[in-house]
Amino acid sequence: MTNTPRVTIWNEFRHEKRNAKIAAIYPDGMHEAIASHLRAEGMTVATATLDEPEHGLTEEALGRTDTLIWWGHTAHDEVSDGVVDRVQSRVLEGMGLVVLHSGHFSKIFKRLMGTSCDLKWREVGEKERIWVVAPGHPIAAGLGEYFEIPAAEMYGEYFDIPEPDTLVFVSWFQGGEVFRSGCCFHRGRGKIFYFRPGHETYPIYHQPEVLKVIGNAVRWAAPSGGPEVKFGHRPEPLESLRVGE
Amino acid sequence: MTNTPRVTIWNEFRHEKRNAKIAAIYPDGMHEAIASHLRAEGMTVATATLDEPEHGLTEEALGRTDTLIWWGHTAHDEVSDGVVDRVQSRVLEGMGLVVLHSGHFSKIFKRLMGTSCDLKWREVGEKERIWVVAPGHPIAAGLGEYFEIPAAEMYGEYFDIPEPDTLVFVSWFQGGEVFRSGCCFHRGRGKIFYFRPGHETYPIYHQPEVLKVIGNAVRWAAPSGGPEVKFGHRPEPLESLRVGE
Amino acid sequence: MTNTPRVTIWNEFRHEKRNAKIAAIYPDGMHEAIASHLRAEGMTVATATLDEPEHGLTEEALGRTDTLIWWGHTAHDEVSDGVVDRVQSRVLEGMGLVVLHSGHFSKIFKRLMGTSCDLKWREVGEKERIWVVAPGHPIAAGLGEYFEIPAAEMYGEYFDIPEPDTLVFVSWFQGGEVFRSGCCFHRGRGKIFYFRPGHETYPIYHQPEVLKVIGNAVRWAAPSGGPEVKFGHRPEPLESLRVGE
Amino acid sequence: MTNTPRVTIWNEFRHEKRNAKIAAIYPDGMHEAIASHLRAEGMTVATATLDEPEHGLTEEALGRTDTLIWWGHTAHDEVSDGVVDRVQSRVLEGMGLVVLHSGHFSKIFKRLMGTSCDLKWREVGEKERIWVVAPGHPIAAGLGEYFEIPAAEMYGEYFDIPEPDTLVFVSWFQGGEVFRSGCCFHRGRGKIFYFRPGHETYPIYHQPEVLKVIGNAVRWAAPSGGPEVKFGHRPEPLESLRVGE
Repeated sequence: MTNTPRVTIWNEFRHEKRNAKIAAIYPDGMHEAIASHLRAEGMTVATATLDEPEHGLTEEALGRTDTLIWWGHTAHDEVSDGVVDRVQSRVLEGMGLVVLHSGHFSKIFKRLMGTSCDLKWREVGEKERIWVVAPGHPIAAGLGEYFEIPAAEMYGEYFDIPEPDTLVFVSWFQGGEVFRSGCCFHRGRGKIFYFRPGHETYPIYHQPEVLKVIGNAVRWAAPSGGPEVKFGHRPEPLESLRVGE
Repeated sequence: MTNTPRVTIWNEFRHEKRNAKIAAIYPDGMHEAIASHLRAEGMTVATATLDEPEHGLTEEALGRTDTLIWWGHTAHDEVSDGVVDRVQSRVLEGMGLVVLHSGHFSKIFKRLMGTSCDLKWREVGEKERIWVVAPGHPIAAGLGEYFEIPAAEMYGEYFDIPEPDTLVFVSWFQGGEVFRSGCCFHRGRGKIFYFRPGHETYPIYHQPEVLKVIGNAVRWAAPSGGPEVKFGHRPEPLESLRVGE
Repeated sequence: MTNTPRVTIWNEFRHEKRNAKIAAIYPDGMHEAIASHLRAEGMTVATATLDEPEHGLTEEALGRTDTLIWWGHTAHDEVSDGVVDRVQSRVLEGMGLVVLHSGHFSKIFKRLMGTSCDLKWREVGEKERIWVVAPGHPIAAGLGEYFEIPAAEMYGEYFDIPEPDTLVFVSWFQGGEVFRSGCCFHRGRGKIFYFRPGHETYPIYHQPEVLKVIGNAVRWAAPSGGPEVKFGHRPEPLESLRVGE
Repeated sequence: MTNTPRVTIWNEFRHEKRNAKIAAIYPDGMHEAIASHLRAEGMTVATATLDEPEHGLTEEALGRTDTLIWWGHTAHDEVSDGVVDRVQSRVLEGMGLVVLHSGHFSKIFKRLMGTSCDLKWREVGEKERIWVVAPGHPIAAGLGEYFEIPAAEMYGEYFDIPEPDTLVFVSWFQGGEVFRSGCCFHRGRGKIFYFRPGHETYPIYHQPEVLKVIGNAVRWAAPSGGPEVKFGHRPEPLESLRVGE
């Protein structure tokens, strides 16, 4: 187990280039806001964005990634199916995946969940209070019983995902909804964490509690050294079948 | 599978006898408010209360019970350990158990959970909105996406229970908390459902959605005909061990 | 809750037409062996096969199906993606799905699981003993603590599926492997059961315990009447946001 | 997160003192066989045994324990209820607990599970093969797809425990049974791992794979720094309730 995994932050990186208000909040892109925090925690951080060749997610780039963070919103459909196949394979082999906010609708998250990943939403800058419901989970390390986001986009239930293997956070929204905001899943040898907070027009990825959770999730999701699994034809039984003859 | 299980409703039945305001809401006790609904759904309903001999929960009474409903609040400690042992045994053998509201602190629920079952609470009559997060579960049958309780006691996280096998409801409270309000557990051959709503001074057990959920839970929790399990010494292997000799 | 759901049995139906030995075991196809049992249990049964138009799974056919059973093996790739999309949508809306044996590699199962669904296998006719590990689950109704299949194809772990919401059966194989043989999943409003036994050259779908489990699974997976879920933009909060002004 | 937790190994330590054959395998007790391995992994290790005052589990001893390992067999009833209360409280507060083999019937494990924890057993020295079914879990680190114990006591299903939060291992036994051999549970802030292998008359706690799993489990179960939880009356809402007035 390593406390300093190699992390790659994938960001769609379109909003920040097109909208002055968003650029003012994230001048180098949301990925750099997250990256600077993770570097300060001692991690080795790479970034990749949609408009790079192969979206920056070549075999080599994924091969040196312990945990991949994913943020996308406006251009999910532009992500090539080949890259989605590649990321899915790597997750099943053991790479961690942390999906943020509007990444719930990314091809890779929908592929790994098998459901629509749909939800309700509203964007009026209401208050969100995120409660810890699994205080023994490593992703909750260093938090209080809850933390608040002063102005957030609302995401509301029903959130169409498989029942999480562990539910870590539940959000309360001022407007009356609740949401399963921190969800752990295992797929193959890989670990996946969905984390709701984050938005292009609110400074959420500058908030210490949010960054702390992302760091915790990256460490939790990194490969943990379990067995390589093998599949296929096993013509020879492990035990003799001549019992009782 | 039966749609008309035999149900026994256990009520502490102290509040209703001592407090005129409560007696006005539940003149025959909370158990009779629930019983009349379940009878209307075609179930065979018995009731039992704390001050009866053996609290009304004799071997015979439990022996003819498919699902037991439990409401207690002010006198958990007066329930005898022998009766708790008996109810626990019956649950492990397959009897369903539906624990309501302040029953979270009953001896039988704490026994079956293995945790403190503690929580936060506040009693100012605030609004509660109960969201369905498992729309495919039979306990959610006949509901909308959410229902509201106009004035409720607040129960807040962290709720110290094992992670539910299925989480069916999450509550939003006006005062800012959330709560896992509908929780399924399997213990031995028995099924357990914890359901948060209900209070002695609010007319919650007259509300149609609450009664509908209780009826659904009784049917879901009733024995489903699985194998009797056997334990202990099995000196004879099922297979010959003389392999390879 | 209905005890007599409308079931559609989908069978690839190629082996039975091409191989005399298989045809001798299942003269009308595996689907008819299963269908005759389910009809005897009072269900309304339709069948559908790969070589029918739209593989027999039109909108209309699926619209009158409570639970769909799926058997495929040699021609998974011939199932059209459009039909897979349609079945997936229906499952998320609430239709049950029971996937049998080599159906683990079907497009629809892999789509709903999000994993490779790969496993180990061997075909030497060894003994399988299927243990009930969830005796309180309705799918185990009417069984003993275990049942045996005298000659079976082996499927071995690691089985690359998400962790089941409930694990009902674990298989012991004579050759030394184990397998999670009965696995429940919830996806959207739909319930999915994977059941390992079954093979084209063994008379497994004539065995009473196997047929009993399939019947139980069909009833468990059928829609249970929970809320229709809605997604998308909710511009109006349920609660006023003018708090504290 | 620490990779070198402080561990206390509790051993009943009666068999080793009374039986020459057992003493030959574990001359300093089973606890010392385990301790020497964990020390070699860099952990700070204390031991405690039944016949010490307070069974060696004083407030102070538990206060400096990150993970407690438990082995008991012949004298479960001699463990005082006060010590069981104390250990349960510490687990709910966050201390890890690793329960070994016949510890399934210890007071503390039954208390935390809420079930009988009963099972089938046979002692003829048959072969056990332990399969990894959660290859992404940290407790499986450093293992192959399975490992074997040449001569073991059999434990068979049905094992009367709550459904594990994660099932890591499933055992195959030569005599025809299966068993859920590695089971993770969360209770309060604490993590619990039940691990089946181990017996007083077989040299199982000298086997490298078994020791590796115990070390992994100790690290996984150690406190992970999540929030302290608070319970009780919260008279002041977090949000103003004067909405809409």
